[in-house]
Amino acid sequence: MSNWRVYLSGEIHSDWREQIESGTKDAKLPVDFFAPVTDHGSSDDCGVAILGDEENSFWKDRKGASVNAIRTRTLIERADIVIVRFGDQYKQWNAAFDAGYAAALGKPIIIMHGPDHAHALKEVDAAAQAVAETPEQIVAVLRYVIDGELKPVAN
Amino acid sequence: MSNWRVYLSGEIHSDWREQIESGTKDAKLPVDFFAPVTDHGSSDDCGVAILGDEENSFWKDRKGASVNAIRTRTLIERADIVIVRFGDQYKQWNAAFDAGYAAALGKPIIIMHGPDHAHALKEVDAAAQAVAETPEQIVAVLRYVIDGELKPVAN
Amino acid sequence: MSNWRVYLSGEIHSDWREQIESGTKDAKLPVDFFAPVTDHGSSDDCGVAILGDEENSFWKDRKGASVNAIRTRTLIERADIVIVRFGDQYKQWNAAFDAGYAAALGKPIIIMHGPDHAHALKEVDAAAQAVAETPEQIVAVLRYVIDGELKPVAN
Amino acid sequence: MSNWRVYLSGEIHSDWREQIESGTKDAKLPVDFFAPVTDHGSSDDCGVAILGDEENSFWKDRKGASVNAIRTRTLIERADIVIVRFGDQYKQWNAAFDAGYAAALGKPIIIMHGPDHAHALKEVDAAAQAVAETPEQIVAVLRYVIDGELKPVAN
Amino acid sequence: MSNWRVYLSGEIHSDWREQIESGTKDAKLPVDFFAPVTDHGSSDDCGVAILGDEENSFWKDRKGASVNAIRTRTLIERADIVIVRFGDQYKQWNAAFDAGYAAALGKPIIIMHGPDHAHALKEVDAAAQAVAETPEQIVAVLRYVIDGELKPVAN
Amino acid sequence: MSNWRVYLSGEIHSDWREQIESGTKDAKLPVDFFAPVTDHGSSDDCGVAILGDEENSFWKDRKGASVNAIRTRTLIERADIVIVRFGDQYKQWNAAFDAGYAAALGKPIIIMHGPDHAHALKEVDAAAQAVAETPEQIVAVLRYVIDGELKPVAN
Amino acid sequence: MSNWRVYLSGEIHSDWREQIESGTKDAKLPVDFFAPVTDHGSSDDCGVAILGDEENSFWKDRKGASVNAIRTRTLIERADIVIVRFGDQYKQWNAAFDAGYAAALGKPIIIMHGPDHAHALKEVDAAAQAVAETPEQIVAVLRYVIDGELKPVAN
Amino acid sequence: MSNWRVYLSGEIHSDWREQIESGTKDAKLPVDFFAPVTDHGSSDDCGVAILGDEENSFWKDRKGASVNAIRTRTLIERADIVIVRFGDQYKQWNAAFDAGYAAALGKPIIIMHGPDHAHALKEVDAAAQAVAETPEQIVAVLRYVIDGELKPVAN
Repeated sequence: MSNWRVYLSGEIHSDWREQIESGTKDAKLPVDFFAPVTDHGSSDDCGVAILGDEENSFWKDRKGASVNAIRTRTLIERADIVIVRFGDQYKQWNAAFDAGYAAALGKPIIIMHGPDHAHALKEVDAAAQAVAETPEQIVAVLRYVIDGELKPVAN
Repeated sequence: MSNWRVYLSGEIHSDWREQIESGTKDAKLPVDFFAPVTDHGSSDDCGVAILGDEENSFWKDRKGASVNAIRTRTLIERADIVIVRFGDQYKQWNAAFDAGYAAALGKPIIIMHGPDHAHALKEVDAAAQAVAETPEQIVAVLRYVIDGELKPVAN
Repeated sequence: MSNWRVYLSGEIHSDWREQIESGTKDAKLPVDFFAPVTDHGSSDDCGVAILGDEENSFWKDRKGASVNAIRTRTLIERADIVIVRFGDQYKQWNAAFDAGYAAALGKPIIIMHGPDHAHALKEVDAAAQAVAETPEQIVAVLRYVIDGELKPVAN
Repeated sequence: MSNWRVYLSGEIHSDWREQIESGTKDAKLPVDFFAPVTDHGSSDDCGVAILGDEENSFWKDRKGASVNAIRTRTLIERADIVIVRFGDQYKQWNAAFDAGYAAALGKPIIIMHGPDHAHALKEVDAAAQAVAETPEQIVAVLRYVIDGELKPVAN
Repeated sequence: MSNWRVYLSGEIHSDWREQIESGTKDAKLPVDFFAPVTDHGSSDDCGVAILGDEENSFWKDRKGASVNAIRTRTLIERADIVIVRFGDQYKQWNAAFDAGYAAALGKPIIIMHGPDHAHALKEVDAAAQAVAETPEQIVAVLRYVIDGELKPVAN
Repeated sequence: MSNWRVYLSGEIHSDWREQIESGTKDAKLPVDFFAPVTDHGSSDDCGVAILGDEENSFWKDRKGASVNAIRTRTLIERADIVIVRFGDQYKQWNAAFDAGYAAALGKPIIIMHGPDHAHALKEVDAAAQAVAETPEQIVAVLRYVIDGELKPVAN
Repeated sequence: MSNWRVYLSGEIHSDWREQIESGTKDAKLPVDFFAPVTDHGSSDDCGVAILGDEENSFWKDRKGASVNAIRTRTLIERADIVIVRFGDQYKQWNAAFDAGYAAALGKPIIIMHGPDHAHALKEVDAAAQAVAETPEQIVAVLRYVIDGELKPVAN
Repeated sequence: MSNWRVYLSGEIHSDWREQIESGTKDAKLPVDFFAPVTDHGSSDDCGVAILGDEENSFWKDRKGASVNAIRTRTLIERADIVIVRFGDQYKQWNAAFDAGYAAALGKPIIIMHGPDHAHALKEVDAAAQAVAETPEQIVAVLRYVIDGELKPVAN
């Protein structure tokens, strides 16, 4: 079977993706990871930098968000599992949007967030198959789901 | 043709739904409106009040969010148009989730928010067919789309 | 909006359906209920009684189960909510089958069973939006989901 | 063409999977087999061992069943053929659930069970394309379906 | 619930449809019946009579078959149950085509034919939920499936 | 059965829709007709008139086209039959777009155009079930498809 | 891009498949061909030879047709193009069934038959993208469609 | 992950495809490009050259367009991204048709056209994620979307 495809959606201000990819690599799991473009400047400017400048910030954002959607939509559709991380800051409405999108497509979903967000994320969590706090837990879930090997995580 | 079905998702702390429904009624549009349960207490307690108490707030929220999902999922699936409002406060991740869910189902979407949220909502806006600030604008869009009558809105 | 369509799948050896329908009627909820044929003899004989006798019980059962499937498949496809009851006796594999079928179709599901079956039904429960023990709880969920009115149930 | 993908759902208390995989390998069929996690302890504990302990056995089961669903749902969706085995013991509602899930997805299904269960499994059997009793029969079906070679089985 | 919609596909050289509709009416079943155009001349000429003459019989037939497809495709898609009759004469490839079309859409299917065609129709029968010989049997199946009332048929 | 829903897409510079609706009404056919907004000024201005002015004509057009899409997308999705008219003038790329959209949804399609466009419309025509030149022919097709009555048209 | 997958459905009494495969191989086209089991005896006996004897020929045929469906259903679903051949003899209802099945799935279809069957196959032909008489024509269509190279066929 | 599949639909009278493929190759992007047959004579004659001559140009075009559809339909369905170019001349209704077809399938779309066509293409542009004028811009979008590297384009 071809590798499992895992899409990592959410905040781009910490190294949570690298931690998961690294742990998964150490566990030698057959996984290909995908993510949105994580360079904040590129993500904001991709529309106008390529397709022409816009004076109005609304349309600048529209151009960029639409170009980004070409990438994220394709990768979510191809994913076997979608993981969405909510960090402590920022509105992260695009992350919650991705979670809803994936849920409607029937993708298995893992949500990653700290305990402070539990109540605000109750609807999103309820649509997911697992709620985790740390990259270590997520790697353990992937190892169990993909390899069938259960390595407990100290909590 | 049967009435147009419009689902109103989003914050439950202002009377924005009533304004839209009222304006639509005045315009005599053939529309049926649907919404999540807007009583905050009921929405939070519906799980434990019916299915049994939970000491752990995470599971109390899980029970309630799942029961609420029975309602919202059915109504979004039945809707012809989904409108999602983002107010000034609150995380509103469930609203962004609904927008993503509706987008994946190919539903036409109208997002309603003030100018301050434009940048944070760029991905959500890009997936919608219209972005409005006021109930008046939304009623005008519905009137145009449903009746074909264009009544400009002073902006 | 037309009535909510609720399909009641599961054991046909108690009056649990009548209790739910009665409670829903008292609550004046706009619901149409559907169910498989609940007359045990008819359900077993429908194939051979109409389409010709079979000496072999396997083919007698095959004929009947296929005719029953015409009814159940149509009604589950049309349903807005699927409720599946597991009683204390009997294998009830057809009920679990219905739950899986409804889950794949993305239907909201309520599972009804007593506490003794919790562990054996963990996978089925995990695919549902609510797990209830009594008809009273189910009526309360329907009332909340359909009318938005929360009437707590003493547990 | 890439290998045929066959998902083996059902009881994890006998070596029926190994028998089928072994026979298929001897027949040199281009098949990849998939299954749920078959270690009973891991399957029950995967939720709490990774995501945190739960005092309440209902929520312990919920956590585990949801994690297991990430695996089973992906593998059933990818499968070309789904085989579901019902052994002599245990409720096996998760197996019947899988059969219904696969049926709704339009997957070809083979049910494996002994003659005692025929009447109780009539609805599940009716949704399948073949009903077999032994691993030998199943290997013969796979050989015929995949390679076009018919090797009769003594019955 | 709205009436059950039943599509009657197949030979247009006998009154088998009228027999079924009449029996269903006597049984007071809530059924709406649909069928292709049964006037043989109209069915053959509809293309050229409306859209212009064709010298070449292949294109005359193409024009007509395409116009007929507007009707049959819509009605099969709307149907709850599809019934396909194979009479003793004629190639009836369009009937078998309809059966395959309905099967791919997941529609419940009843095939009606005499015993002589059993072997030639084995694949079509295997995709259906019931195989009947007479209109009386079909009315009995509809009565059972729709009303839950089993009236045996003497065979 | 509820009325047939027919969507009339295409040029808004002649009275072709009125001719079809009038002929269909005379024939007393059970049809509900739908169309995009046909007032050219409203169609162009609906975005900026409601949601705020745009200096840039590209974004003015974008706002308007997106609002119009709320209407056309819903109505095409609800339609049983989609009719697309290509007049002698104008680019009419939105009409060809509608035809492709409807074809992907599997809707039965009738294309209406004069003989001069035949070669340029060969791909669009090939995806349709009928190609007509006049409203009279279209009414005749609807009458035949819906009522089963064939009234030849002099050509 | 992986090879084009072409399914060859229809009569198993001539070497038409071998002719197409041979011509395609000579043209060095990147195609994988699939077909039902073409050994007539195996195709008829596969059910009872593996799953147990049946005295009744109807059930013998049912067992076999269902096992064959595991193969044909999977291969049609995977196919990029479905080719259906109608020979001069035999009822070939399973071939017409396959054509309808493929049409509902939106597969591109090529029908192969002699001129005598044109009128009887008008509905099936109308649902296809090409109608051919000889293997040579079919190889030419595949060469054009896959490689973009047009090699005319003398007709 | 396998290469991204990009379908290039539209005018076949300039070398715009070669420019995009060349730029993408220089950027070493993992992309497979697909297109309709771009030899104008072959595209027009493929039907009659293979399947037999037609005196009537309408049927000659029908035969050819249907054969071409086998190729284009398969390739659009397989594509991750669909790019549609509108040149300065020609009706290009088949290009707009492809855009609508891709939109209904939920494919990400890039439209390429000069500024003169902006108003006439407003509906098609509104359904796309990016509107570009030059091959250079398109290569830059692909580089950003696939590799995450933003290389601005001078505009």
